[in-house]
Amino acid sequence: MLAVTILGNNSALPAFDRHPTAQVVTMEDQIFLVDCGEGTQMQMAKYKIRRSKINYIFISHLHGDHYFGLIGLLTSMGLLGRTQDLHIYAPAALEGIIGLQLRVADIQLSYSLHFHPLGADGVIVREAKFEVSCFPVYHRIECWGFRFREVRPFRRVNPEKARQNEVPSSFFDRLKWGESYLRKDGILVENQSVTEPAAKAKSYAYAADTLFDQRIADYVKGVDLLYHETTYLKDLGEQAGKRFHSTTAQAATIAHLAGVHRLLIGHFSSKYEKLQPFEQEARDIFPNTDLAMEGVTYKV
Amino acid sequence: MLAVTILGNNSALPAFDRHPTAQVVTMEDQIFLVDCGEGTQMQMAKYKIRRSKINYIFISHLHGDHYFGLIGLLTSMGLLGRTQDLHIYAPAALEGIIGLQLRVADIQLSYSLHFHPLGADGVIVREAKFEVSCFPVYHRIECWGFRFREVRPFRRVNPEKARQNEVPSSFFDRLKWGESYLRKDGILVENQSVTEPAAKAKSYAYAADTLFDQRIADYVKGVDLLYHETTYLKDLGEQAGKRFHSTTAQAATIAHLAGVHRLLIGHFSSKYEKLQPFEQEARDIFPNTDLAMEGVTYKV
Repeated sequence: MLAVTILGNNSALPAFDRHPTAQVVTMEDQIFLVDCGEGTQMQMAKYKIRRSKINYIFISHLHGDHYFGLIGLLTSMGLLGRTQDLHIYAPAALEGIIGLQLRVADIQLSYSLHFHPLGADGVIVREAKFEVSCFPVYHRIECWGFRFREVRPFRRVNPEKARQNEVPSSFFDRLKWGESYLRKDGILVENQSVTEPAAKAKSYAYAADTLFDQRIADYVKGVDLLYHETTYLKDLGEQAGKRFHSTTAQAATIAHLAGVHRLLIGHFSSKYEKLQPFEQEARDIFPNTDLAMEGVTYKV
Repeated sequence: MLAVTILGNNSALPAFDRHPTAQVVTMEDQIFLVDCGEGTQMQMAKYKIRRSKINYIFISHLHGDHYFGLIGLLTSMGLLGRTQDLHIYAPAALEGIIGLQLRVADIQLSYSLHFHPLGADGVIVREAKFEVSCFPVYHRIECWGFRFREVRPFRRVNPEKARQNEVPSSFFDRLKWGESYLRKDGILVENQSVTEPAAKAKSYAYAADTLFDQRIADYVKGVDLLYHETTYLKDLGEQAGKRFHSTTAQAATIAHLAGVHRLLIGHFSSKYEKLQPFEQEARDIFPNTDLAMEGVTYKV
């Protein structure tokens, strides 16, 4: 199971009851928090996201609408007596900001906070069942996108056939990863004769605030679901460029170039009350597009 | 007109749709913001408080539930193109936190931000029509209360009597402040013969997070409205003491000792869903007590 729940879909100024950027990615038994604008902990309460299930937080960049809610969440976790470790991946300067705010409040967190400064694209978390990597996007200040990928066997064992071929069940895990089995009598049981293709491992990419840049299409190539910012409608392409943001048409073009399955758009400017035109414009270029709506979970 | 509107009445952990501390004090044509917990700018939008009318912000102390919403408000004001000066009165360390957060975001505010570190009790803002002073309260870290006082003439001119006594209207302003008028013919027109007592200038005091301490009663003596924290009900006096907070009974005792007209209580612990017992316990000691409820304006 890989899914994304939107907690905030607006750009810098909160407006029309839309909130600054935050979303949670659910994968296996983990909940990842991606960006954490002001009020994220209240949004989590509203949408019944359990703070205690979060072990990893990823912050794309240090504009406030993407992280001003973080320190409140961290201190609340402490007040609730959290003991599990928490890992934060973010631009380096955030560590000093958090440290300073804890220091002036004379607060000792009840849990260990591990800060991992982002520095180069590539895998940043590698666990048995999932992998998270980061890639640069192109904003006014250092800014990162994140890619979440399930790690799962690509073959499914047919237990009946395996037993007929005298493969012991202790070898089944290796069958799932494509190995063939050499029996003691010297007969090789070809993997494909006792397995079938498994469901494909899913992937999700989050492209935070960025200019239109085709390099992003390379970084998110072939993901099942891509989130790409669309601060403006396509008629404001020049303004988008000046402010290091993207339009609907630009986000849809990246989705098309990257050959993703589905596109999710968000980070809408506060100047727009109605969001329908965003969907329409993006779908003109990339039909399988949806608006990122707060409180909605998008399954990958 | 002096009034207080509550934007957040909860203690550190947001709960039961109650928010961390923030309130606005309206006096003459000014709106003062007192403390600014996370989500204050959203609460201001909800309750139609105009950000642009705020020229002074007072922060009691640097626990997050009293200031984590400030940086978001400051940057939003910038995004909205504010040009008026803004004055912040707060413990000194806040200046560095704000500066660091603006720096890493590479943000130049569109307006001048004047930071005034709190250091000693006494008047901190003195304007023609109002005065604000601060006083120490007794919390785990440096913490301040604030007193807001209308400055207004204490006499009201009776224009008919003044004219009969040949006092020129250009002297009326001085009459209001109690002066008598010496006519050119040498006759003294006694102030009280041409004026009447004016409505009393009103005052409001905000006692932020604090232990029960009788010195606070001296600082807020005789104010028309006192806000005092009541994190706990009276049975948790010991816990309140350990955590540098107050109970209902303690807040009501301060109100009684100070001889204030009316008491407003807030900063309720997240452990309490129902607030009625707070009102009841405080009224047992100080009958003219009200719960500080979000979105409600309390006129002084």
